[in-house]
Amino acid sequence: MRISELAEQSGVTVATIKYYLREGLLPPGSKVSERQADYGDLHVARLGLLRVLREVGAVPVADLKDIVDAVQNETLSVHQMFGATYDALARSSEAVSQHDRTLASQVVQRAGWTHVRPDTPALDQLAGLLSVLSDVGWPLDLQNAATYLELVNAIAAYEVSRLTAADLHADRNAVVQQMVVGQVVFGQLLLSLRRLAHEHHSALKFNEDLPAANSTTSPR
Amino acid sequence: MRISELAEQSGVTVATIKYYLREGLLPPGSKVSERQADYGDLHVARLGLLRVLREVGAVPVADLKDIVDAVQNETLSVHQMFGATYDALARSSEAVSQHDRTLASQVVQRAGWTHVRPDTPALDQLAGLLSVLSDVGWPLDLQNAATYLELVNAIAAYEVSRLTAADLHADRNAVVQQMVVGQVVFGQLLLSLRRLAHEHHSALKFNEDLPAANSTTSPR
Repeated sequence: MRISELAEQSGVTVATIKYYLREGLLPPGSKVSERQADYGDLHVARLGLLRVLREVGAVPVADLKDIVDAVQNETLSVHQMFGATYDALARSSEAVSQHDRTLASQVVQRAGWTHVRPDTPALDQLAGLLSVLSDVGWPLDLQNAATYLELVNAIAAYEVSRLTAADLHADRNAVVQQMVVGQVVFGQLLLSLRRLAHEHHSALKFNEDLPAANSTTSPR
Repeated sequence: MRISELAEQSGVTVATIKYYLREGLLPPGSKVSERQADYGDLHVARLGLLRVLREVGAVPVADLKDIVDAVQNETLSVHQMFGATYDALARSSEAVSQHDRTLASQVVQRAGWTHVRPDTPALDQLAGLLSVLSDVGWPLDLQNAATYLELVNAIAAYEVSRLTAADLHADRNAVVQQMVVGQVVFGQLLLSLRRLAHEHHSALKFNEDLPAANSTTSPR
């Protein structure tokens, strides 16, 4: 198809497609004439991925290249491809102290997440949040965090188990796209559901208008 | 204390304090002279709350009034005070379709959150996310959502159980402030931990370099 059709089918403007071509984020089409190239399904798939990375994952343009390189390099495993994507999603510019970084490592250790890479940006992100919690006078109590970590672990394990391995070697664009949606949109879904559950449980706990018998479903 | 000391102690500028006074978000100090007023602990507490609402909760200035009114009106229960805060945190300007709204209600029903108010903004927020999931070709499957909803329910129940009821009637500013931090910062903490857990579980599942025996801790 022509570039104009590609734009229409992918929902990405011609100007942006040309930018992606220049930056090597999209492979060139096959030349039909001096001034025209032909694009196919691979280009549609790649643009779908780039759109999700930009719009859903809010990945900065500068970080797209790492992910695309990992997607294009078929000698890299799915695991390595996901690693590049995790990093782009978790990248944070804030500096964290050594103390908070140590605490973050202890949290990961206590949770039993032995396969987290020691240099993953997600660890710095966690360290930053632990520092905010200290600042607001609510430091994380590592001794009492076990229940919480177990629940988070169960959620994440469940989510990863739902990633279908079926087409893992078929379309690498689609696999990464699925992962970003899982990470970001399901993350928002999780927070939204949690908010509703809070409303329910705080009504049970704090609404003096409810008969006390109703609070039998309350936690612990 | 003088307004300049109040600014220093609360970390809020004098200009902003004057704005809060004009808008009725902060009660006036006691008059010492024609041009000077005296401020106390109540003002520090209120400014602490306003700061958390603005900086942590990203609550628009226009929505602060509802929360402050509920905090100030001591005839309102903690439950009602939380309701006003939940609403400000969940407010969304996007229109949602009746179909998505119905689906959102069904999700809440299936989760057993019977005390969610039918008109809560959090329900519209969920409806909006369900619509995004449909758009990206990953609609929520209500039949299979039970496990996920149970886990979210356990997390929220646990978090609400940690809200100390001790000082509920002591300082209403502090109680709401605590709730916002719980909602927002612990929400970010949850996502950050989940990201690390994903990294661990996806390594177990997809890293072909790991011995297969290691995947005994894998989910389901």
